[in-house]
Amino acid sequence: MTDTIEMRAEQVHALAHTCLSDNGCNEENAAAVADTVATAERNGAKSHGLFRIPGYVAALRSGKVNGAAEPRVEELRAAALRADGDGGFAPLALRRGIPELARRAEKCGAAALAVVRAHHFAALWHETEALAEHGLAALACTAYMPAVAPAGARAALFGTNPISFAWPRPGREPMVFDMATAAMAMGEVQIAARDGKTVPPGTGLNAKGEPTTDPARIADGGVLLPFGGYKGSALALMVELLAAALIGERFSFEAAEADNRDGGPPRGGEFLLALSPEALAGSGWDKHAEEFFARFDALDGARLPGARRHARRAENVPAQVNAALVEKIRGLCRNAPPL
Amino acid sequence: MTDTIEMRAEQVHALAHTCLSDNGCNEENAAAVADTVATAERNGAKSHGLFRIPGYVAALRSGKVNGAAEPRVEELRAAALRADGDGGFAPLALRRGIPELARRAEKCGAAALAVVRAHHFAALWHETEALAEHGLAALACTAYMPAVAPAGARAALFGTNPISFAWPRPGREPMVFDMATAAMAMGEVQIAARDGKTVPPGTGLNAKGEPTTDPARIADGGVLLPFGGYKGSALALMVELLAAALIGERFSFEAAEADNRDGGPPRGGEFLLALSPEALAGSGWDKHAEEFFARFDALDGARLPGARRHARRAENVPAQVNAALVEKIRGLCRNAPPL
Repeated sequence: MTDTIEMRAEQVHALAHTCLSDNGCNEENAAAVADTVATAERNGAKSHGLFRIPGYVAALRSGKVNGAAEPRVEELRAAALRADGDGGFAPLALRRGIPELARRAEKCGAAALAVVRAHHFAALWHETEALAEHGLAALACTAYMPAVAPAGARAALFGTNPISFAWPRPGREPMVFDMATAAMAMGEVQIAARDGKTVPPGTGLNAKGEPTTDPARIADGGVLLPFGGYKGSALALMVELLAAALIGERFSFEAAEADNRDGGPPRGGEFLLALSPEALAGSGWDKHAEEFFARFDALDGARLPGARRHARRAENVPAQVNAALVEKIRGLCRNAPPL
Repeated sequence: MTDTIEMRAEQVHALAHTCLSDNGCNEENAAAVADTVATAERNGAKSHGLFRIPGYVAALRSGKVNGAAEPRVEELRAAALRADGDGGFAPLALRRGIPELARRAEKCGAAALAVVRAHHFAALWHETEALAEHGLAALACTAYMPAVAPAGARAALFGTNPISFAWPRPGREPMVFDMATAAMAMGEVQIAARDGKTVPPGTGLNAKGEPTTDPARIADGGVLLPFGGYKGSALALMVELLAAALIGERFSFEAAEADNRDGGPPRGGEFLLALSPEALAGSGWDKHAEEFFARFDALDGARLPGARRHARRAENVPAQVNAALVEKIRGLCRNAPPL
């Protein structure tokens, strides 16, 4: 059993905030990233919680990311905004862009936000859920560095290219999903290899480009595949086009070529879309949607996406954080907060 | 080998147009549907070509669909339009709505179109491709009658719920995909059943909820499964929310409950989104995108979605249409055109 340390949300936040501040983030940037990290831990989303802090720090120390970024939100058209991240981490650009995106979507019925010149290292449900809290349906996607081969090919071109969608449920938690278009994250493949397990057919290819269910052969110079064969591959392709071509930011292959390989997130873009059911369907839209959710919940075996994460958040129990990770992060601080 | 009849595009169009006119469509509606049918045959998309005519006719004969529909396009907000189909087939509502959607997206950067009170019985690439021809990225989705069980469940709740996306490539064919979120479209399952073929494992369950590779058992009271497990299931759920809840039209389960089971398409909605790369990325967006497509094309084994359909269209060879189907359609005409 791995040693863990029990940490309340405030402690997670304080550790993240201190570590980011000690490594070059100004107050606003440190607070925005620490909020994102603490929310992930509170939701049980460990791979996007404190686990990310060493990468954030590496990107600050190498000078790749601007810890004092001043993201600016500008109008491109009535329903199209750009949040220029000023070379900083994405959370502050999102914090500034999302309220204006919500206003535009309420006013125009639909609106898009192009997040550019930012470094995204978190889950996407933070932003789609925030838009759903405004009563809006929301879609988000982002590219990353190549790790996934298009269906039929043997070399990586796509990032793991996640898509998140949220639906507002006034008076309840929104319905939110956030999924990689890759069949599996490389981290999960590595864990399966460590544990001597196999992975399902379609997860990846070995270094020769041959299909394999041996995770060690995928992790050792192989590539991941999109989920669901050529259909998932088409969606991964769509994410490249939305999060790069559409908004004028880097494709996964461009991000990798420009990155300094410090272990932190490369520069890239994020595409966000907000849609107003009040504008498009009119009043009563929420009651109508709940009739559908009631049918869904009545099906034996079906479970809404995000339900486990929301249950975890509702429990409000302290996070169990890997002790070695906490020690590592404390070692990256000048003055680590008390445990 | 099934008997086929070779038909040029004009012959396909004339047969469809005559049959629709003879069964209650006015000139504009017959022409719009016949264009859609003929384009499908020309693209080799047989499941949405003449194969659909008996269903269109059934819906006209039962009185479910208004053959003289006068769809109206109205502004809901600056970037949100509604095309009210007036109870007719979708093609005329789309023909009237798409040019205005394109204008709004160019002006506002992003715009949505809610198609309501329409009966959709065709592929979605017609409309996303039309928007891409305007230099816009486009997304479309529609629900249908329940045929797909959510991941983990054994009863149908989702329609086959297709998603289509198109990317504009000035001077070339747009990149277009159009895919059911079901493992296979019911139209394809029906054709496989008609031709006595099997379908891959994972396509669906029989009426008892058991896996089967016999398409007739899936079509006859069984259910389809989503592609790609719980991820495809989440996308099918998103389609229900976008094509019904967001735009104030019927969910798949509501469409089925209201439908008269004449074999034609139920009343339903379609969600369309258009996004302007010119507004969001600025000039040079097309050159940037082509750099990505060049990388894609350089990968051994990779093929862009829609490439086969576009190649088929470019060949401009006559369609090979099932002879029994042609005879059936001719039998539905008062004055069938000569073969």
